[in-house]
Amino acid sequence: MSKHVVAALQIGADPKGTQATLGKILSYEAELKEKKVELVVIPEATLGGYPKGSHFGTYLGYRLQAGREKFAEYFKGAIDVPGPEIEQLETLSASTGASIVIGVIERGGSSLYCTAVYIDSVKGYVGKHRKIMPTATERLIWGQGDGSTLITADFEGLGKVGGAICWENFMPLLRASFYAKGLNIYVAPTVDDRDGWTALIRTIGNEGRLFVVSAVAFLPTAQAAQLDMPGWPEGKNAIDGGSLIVNPYGDIIAGPLRGKEGLLTAEIDYDIIPQAKYDMDPVGHYSRGDIFQLTVDQTPRDAVVFK
Amino acid sequence: MSKHVVAALQIGADPKGTQATLGKILSYEAELKEKKVELVVIPEATLGGYPKGSHFGTYLGYRLQAGREKFAEYFKGAIDVPGPEIEQLETLSASTGASIVIGVIERGGSSLYCTAVYIDSVKGYVGKHRKIMPTATERLIWGQGDGSTLITADFEGLGKVGGAICWENFMPLLRASFYAKGLNIYVAPTVDDRDGWTALIRTIGNEGRLFVVSAVAFLPTAQAAQLDMPGWPEGKNAIDGGSLIVNPYGDIIAGPLRGKEGLLTAEIDYDIIPQAKYDMDPVGHYSRGDIFQLTVDQTPRDAVVFK
Amino acid sequence: MSKHVVAALQIGADPKGTQATLGKILSYEAELKEKKVELVVIPEATLGGYPKGSHFGTYLGYRLQAGREKFAEYFKGAIDVPGPEIEQLETLSASTGASIVIGVIERGGSSLYCTAVYIDSVKGYVGKHRKIMPTATERLIWGQGDGSTLITADFEGLGKVGGAICWENFMPLLRASFYAKGLNIYVAPTVDDRDGWTALIRTIGNEGRLFVVSAVAFLPTAQAAQLDMPGWPEGKNAIDGGSLIVNPYGDIIAGPLRGKEGLLTAEIDYDIIPQAKYDMDPVGHYSRGDIFQLTVDQTPRDAVVFK
Amino acid sequence: MSKHVVAALQIGADPKGTQATLGKILSYEAELKEKKVELVVIPEATLGGYPKGSHFGTYLGYRLQAGREKFAEYFKGAIDVPGPEIEQLETLSASTGASIVIGVIERGGSSLYCTAVYIDSVKGYVGKHRKIMPTATERLIWGQGDGSTLITADFEGLGKVGGAICWENFMPLLRASFYAKGLNIYVAPTVDDRDGWTALIRTIGNEGRLFVVSAVAFLPTAQAAQLDMPGWPEGKNAIDGGSLIVNPYGDIIAGPLRGKEGLLTAEIDYDIIPQAKYDMDPVGHYSRGDIFQLTVDQTPRDAVVFK
Amino acid sequence: MSKHVVAALQIGADPKGTQATLGKILSYEAELKEKKVELVVIPEATLGGYPKGSHFGTYLGYRLQAGREKFAEYFKGAIDVPGPEIEQLETLSASTGASIVIGVIERGGSSLYCTAVYIDSVKGYVGKHRKIMPTATERLIWGQGDGSTLITADFEGLGKVGGAICWENFMPLLRASFYAKGLNIYVAPTVDDRDGWTALIRTIGNEGRLFVVSAVAFLPTAQAAQLDMPGWPEGKNAIDGGSLIVNPYGDIIAGPLRGKEGLLTAEIDYDIIPQAKYDMDPVGHYSRGDIFQLTVDQTPRDAVVFK
Amino acid sequence: MSKHVVAALQIGADPKGTQATLGKILSYEAELKEKKVELVVIPEATLGGYPKGSHFGTYLGYRLQAGREKFAEYFKGAIDVPGPEIEQLETLSASTGASIVIGVIERGGSSLYCTAVYIDSVKGYVGKHRKIMPTATERLIWGQGDGSTLITADFEGLGKVGGAICWENFMPLLRASFYAKGLNIYVAPTVDDRDGWTALIRTIGNEGRLFVVSAVAFLPTAQAAQLDMPGWPEGKNAIDGGSLIVNPYGDIIAGPLRGKEGLLTAEIDYDIIPQAKYDMDPVGHYSRGDIFQLTVDQTPRDAVVFK
Repeated sequence: MSKHVVAALQIGADPKGTQATLGKILSYEAELKEKKVELVVIPEATLGGYPKGSHFGTYLGYRLQAGREKFAEYFKGAIDVPGPEIEQLETLSASTGASIVIGVIERGGSSLYCTAVYIDSVKGYVGKHRKIMPTATERLIWGQGDGSTLITADFEGLGKVGGAICWENFMPLLRASFYAKGLNIYVAPTVDDRDGWTALIRTIGNEGRLFVVSAVAFLPTAQAAQLDMPGWPEGKNAIDGGSLIVNPYGDIIAGPLRGKEGLLTAEIDYDIIPQAKYDMDPVGHYSRGDIFQLTVDQTPRDAVVFK
Repeated sequence: MSKHVVAALQIGADPKGTQATLGKILSYEAELKEKKVELVVIPEATLGGYPKGSHFGTYLGYRLQAGREKFAEYFKGAIDVPGPEIEQLETLSASTGASIVIGVIERGGSSLYCTAVYIDSVKGYVGKHRKIMPTATERLIWGQGDGSTLITADFEGLGKVGGAICWENFMPLLRASFYAKGLNIYVAPTVDDRDGWTALIRTIGNEGRLFVVSAVAFLPTAQAAQLDMPGWPEGKNAIDGGSLIVNPYGDIIAGPLRGKEGLLTAEIDYDIIPQAKYDMDPVGHYSRGDIFQLTVDQTPRDAVVFK
Repeated sequence: MSKHVVAALQIGADPKGTQATLGKILSYEAELKEKKVELVVIPEATLGGYPKGSHFGTYLGYRLQAGREKFAEYFKGAIDVPGPEIEQLETLSASTGASIVIGVIERGGSSLYCTAVYIDSVKGYVGKHRKIMPTATERLIWGQGDGSTLITADFEGLGKVGGAICWENFMPLLRASFYAKGLNIYVAPTVDDRDGWTALIRTIGNEGRLFVVSAVAFLPTAQAAQLDMPGWPEGKNAIDGGSLIVNPYGDIIAGPLRGKEGLLTAEIDYDIIPQAKYDMDPVGHYSRGDIFQLTVDQTPRDAVVFK
Repeated sequence: MSKHVVAALQIGADPKGTQATLGKILSYEAELKEKKVELVVIPEATLGGYPKGSHFGTYLGYRLQAGREKFAEYFKGAIDVPGPEIEQLETLSASTGASIVIGVIERGGSSLYCTAVYIDSVKGYVGKHRKIMPTATERLIWGQGDGSTLITADFEGLGKVGGAICWENFMPLLRASFYAKGLNIYVAPTVDDRDGWTALIRTIGNEGRLFVVSAVAFLPTAQAAQLDMPGWPEGKNAIDGGSLIVNPYGDIIAGPLRGKEGLLTAEIDYDIIPQAKYDMDPVGHYSRGDIFQLTVDQTPRDAVVFK
Repeated sequence: MSKHVVAALQIGADPKGTQATLGKILSYEAELKEKKVELVVIPEATLGGYPKGSHFGTYLGYRLQAGREKFAEYFKGAIDVPGPEIEQLETLSASTGASIVIGVIERGGSSLYCTAVYIDSVKGYVGKHRKIMPTATERLIWGQGDGSTLITADFEGLGKVGGAICWENFMPLLRASFYAKGLNIYVAPTVDDRDGWTALIRTIGNEGRLFVVSAVAFLPTAQAAQLDMPGWPEGKNAIDGGSLIVNPYGDIIAGPLRGKEGLLTAEIDYDIIPQAKYDMDPVGHYSRGDIFQLTVDQTPRDAVVFK
Repeated sequence: MSKHVVAALQIGADPKGTQATLGKILSYEAELKEKKVELVVIPEATLGGYPKGSHFGTYLGYRLQAGREKFAEYFKGAIDVPGPEIEQLETLSASTGASIVIGVIERGGSSLYCTAVYIDSVKGYVGKHRKIMPTATERLIWGQGDGSTLITADFEGLGKVGGAICWENFMPLLRASFYAKGLNIYVAPTVDDRDGWTALIRTIGNEGRLFVVSAVAFLPTAQAAQLDMPGWPEGKNAIDGGSLIVNPYGDIIAGPLRGKEGLLTAEIDYDIIPQAKYDMDPVGHYSRGDIFQLTVDQTPRDAVVFK
């Protein structure tokens, strides 16, 4: 079977909290079944949330107590991976037959990580990727994943699926490492709703010669999303979406979907992949290993290892 | 429940012997109940004693018989772990609801160890830590614990509690290993009554982002404590105390208590921990596992293993 | 001076030959002066030509003699670098004050190379880059450059300028190597006129946090260009242009210019570069050298070296 | 010669800019000579500045243009290492005979680093340490140093001197690595003026059994220092100083100096070091390499390496 | 009660046979009672005998029938353990209050073993140790014990007693395993009458920090003992004795008794043991489990196991 | 050549210091040559000294400053290995043809180690062994070697030579490890002058079936040696010597030499070794690997490892 239906679920965290957000996701069960979706990608930080506009009460050289409390509250809204929320998603995955990649805020010890969780429709939870490079204010609240977190899942019926979160995808060496893993589908959950993101996703499809499913978060206006966003234009959505699906030539085959929540789907055909790689294979006939050699260190880098 | 009352019992070995010392501890039962103490830390070597000032008749290259006899007497005053003295403490713990960490001199085969015993208010005796690095003259009378002894207790209602004894706490790698164990409360029984100890305990709280309860021994003047202390100032207490309790920012919240015996208590609030780790998480977002990786070998190292 | 005018000269090889093409370029002297252009980028293979549609009489396993003769004719139209044509361009550069990057077909021994030549408005010819990865049928007629050819020029008044030719720019490791060279302006001469190219150029600006000037060739219909293009739609331009200039956020600031020859210009402001790198610095604060390390071997790789 | 005079220069960046700050430092030439200072430590970020209270216009998920411009301005005030400002300090060092460790903001490519520069009174510039772990908002503006940056200087007449910047010093594994380098003097430039810092510095002296010179920045009130510090108490100094010098027992031998600029000096005697290590040697007789082994990876981690 | 009388019964097998030898032992009943002996050790192979000088008619590659017959006769003289001879010794033990360790030749199936039998004055027969390493010609007539035979007895009033037979005691790993069993008294029945044996027994006391009772056999001249001893000096005793008792410092406190049969006794004081272990504890504070770890496999190794 | 002359140089540290002691050793050059000595063993702590009777001002729980100063002075008298003193011994070794094993006090970082240095008559310095188990007061002043220090030298003309220092030799597992290394000569430098030492050395020869050369220190009365020895009998030598040489049957073939300095020599014949191992081979036919297996971990155990 070379044809598959894949989807991006354009959605955002519910201001009522993690369990409410989870409920919103589960409400798509019927639509996922009906459209025979085999893979659904859910945006960055959907479980746990992305409190856009906050700076967590932190200034160069000091923190306000209110900022610490905001972080502690954010910490409570995060989830364990695996854990009970993941189990609910496993149930959804099994009932719909759609494997899931979802962006969550993960508690790892006492630090938080921006994590993409991989759930197989048959095997359940199969692994996670921790964002290795948070951007700007994210660096205050999220730790950095290490090289061991550059995983790919071998999803039921779909083969290799992997990818990275938000601006990590701008790291050319990271992308090259994923091309070398032999993906069929590259997934890119994000909160970046600008059109430069569209250009990036097309370029990933084009240079990597693979399908890309990018799920962008949707959050309404600051007021509706209960966010405090200094300097943000009144009435402008906090995150406007822009999910899209791209083929191995970099052509958009679905989306971008903007301005609302929704499930964006496309049928893809794996037979295109070798056709596209006839033109260019970024880690095969179109590489120059004699000049450029990328070393990827996937060693776990825990600060303390017990034996 | 995020709030807990913790205590350091500042006390010293009774010159009349181990059973007398035990009696002194048991006499605090009412106060422990009244103050609703959930954890009480008792200083290093309280049961068995710390005969400060002795050199056990030992000189470089030879020993005097009197020193051997002094050691043999010290050996008799030590306890087995577990054993009858520990059972008495289990009873105290169960009746008061206070879990106990107490410093004792333990007989292990024919060697002595400076040991911290962990007693849970519900489960009773749960484990022990043998000091891994005795200091100076201690090296004549105490063996060294191995890596298997770096335990933490999961105390009823309190979660993870662990720590080390006296100058072990100056070992940065040891401390880092405990931070990686995810403690809520770090305990530090000691006989060090100097103010550098206060600075250390504050630094442990600060760098480890956890609560610290340090119980320092109190022994009166050499005469009163029936000790022979060559070169020690007349009238100066043998060990002057200095117990203190510190929060995850390294602030002192109780003590230091000096110059007398007594029960030092403080109410602590676990909700502060994630707030403090927002600033710094020594084994999470504030570590550099790519540069520094600590390996901790917890293998038991008995000289002879039977199977 | 942080502001500069840069240009892409959208042009194609004249069917009358190399000298005619050179004449066409020189005819822009006045416009370059008038617009105070400091850098002009000229498309891939402009001198020497890109005989789109040919397969040089070559099939898998054999060649037709006609193909060999076509190649020999093409060989004659190529140039030496440096050489007389380059000298004419040095004169143009000096007179206009515009440094030049131009795509040419270079004779190197008995092989041809698709080369970008760097001409400084003050110092004249300063170096060349030979395409390291020809695409498809290009592999029949052009050799591959080696690592020594990844040059950057330090152009008068502009600082570091460098880049690659056509689909080389899809190689993520090659791009990363240029980001590490600290370019202000990335140049991308090409013959690719599709909109995926636009997405790529925007992504280069965005991920590299630098300005990009991409000069795309323009060739009219096959008939007008005197090309034989089997299967090509009648009346469709052979190469439709699409030159564009992009800023360090990936925003298009000029172009894409389509359907005709012409000089596309934009004023750029270097002050934006550190502002943009505040967000992301692909080889600085936004890299993960502990995970991804790219080694670039720039050793010359001549087959035979005499000493 | 076992006795030496060491100093901490408690000072802050001049709001008039880097050259003005440099002038302030140079004005101490006579006092350095008069007091026969052999080592002077100058606080974190003194050249380049520490704009306490800024958050560089950055919120979770977006940046304001004003923040980018503030960063670009900050970038301009930073220095190259080595470079002209360092040369001026080399002159000061040579004329006074005082080796210098100074905190600066360093331009490294397009990223900034918080760097400690080592200048020998005879050999001049000998190396630099880039902070490996920025704290909170610092993570927006400074990159992370790699393991190759854990340098020590072998200063004329003083032997090994090394250390870390600000909260790096709270990293127990980092400290242990410096103890293993065999320092005589540990230097700790910082902007942390709280008393927990005093406790830390005393603990470093105590656990490391070496001298510590900590130079803390001094900046007057926000108004005087031309800083915007939201939520900061009116009239409270932005950074109140607290420089101190500690001996290998953790005793304070000079300072803490608070509330003003000034040169804090102390005479130290290296003969104390082996005496103090008789009690405890954190990487020798007081380590347990069989249990705890710290691996320090000092490999340079440039994202791209050319050869 | 820390003081005890222990004894070595220096004796040899009677040429008239096992029952005669047993009679000789029983004849010491009065003396054992009178001297209040609590432990008596009787030499190797006392019951069953040690036909010194025989080679059982065996040469490399063949045997003489006479040798086979000699072995069969020797087999008949051996005993079962437990069995009737042991019962007689149990009676002796009970009547005198002396626990017994005696060397015998044991029939185990159709093989013979050189065995030490442990008889408690209250509990009677409590176990046996089969020599695990016969020496030289012994290998023709005795099998090898397995790890399950490394027993210790917990003798009435004496605590742990254990040990090995003859040259087994030269095996450093075997000795270490016994030290780890926590013996008070190490017993060493033997037929080795040389002065190197004295040095060994002293060394066992010294390194093991325990009391050692070594009972050496006494056999008169070959003629008197009815032995055929080719090459043996005329008139020299076949086994000259040499029994001795050693304290935990390796000092001889009784013996060596040479040239005759007899009961060698000494009063020992257990209080010396912890005093001696203050100096050295071979399996406690004086071991290096991180370097040397001895694994002792005590699994029974019967060739065929039925279940 | 199976015959060799080996020697123990019975000597002690000169109260005038390390260089004076070295001079004393060098004065034996002529005698070493004359007697054709091929191996000379020099006692424990000869260079650096063994200040018998000191307790370095240390009592349980505190130190006197005088003790710290005594240690610092002792630290200064220690040597680097390799270093200038070792070079002088290399010269002696080369000129006499005698390989040397000498006990020294070694500075390793800021800790001292009791070390045996191996110097080959042809290759010079070849390695060192750091005592792994200091005894009693030694634990105050010397660190512990790790498993990597269990070296053997392959001395010119002599083959494998190795061993341990003083009471380490009482560790049965350590000895077993050396037997497994296949030594011809076991060396045992010491300060133990008691006759239990003689018994131990004989037992090592006997159980290990190798030659043993034990060099015991000689120091005259406390007064003459300028030592303060509390409780030591007036007029008794501080260390009385007792050097001896033993063959593979445990027979003394030279010494014990008591009461004076001097060079003790013996001719040994390697041909005896296989003869003696016919009787017993402690790691071959006389071992029981199915029961006893000793694991020796020779991993270096530095607390901090840089790479």
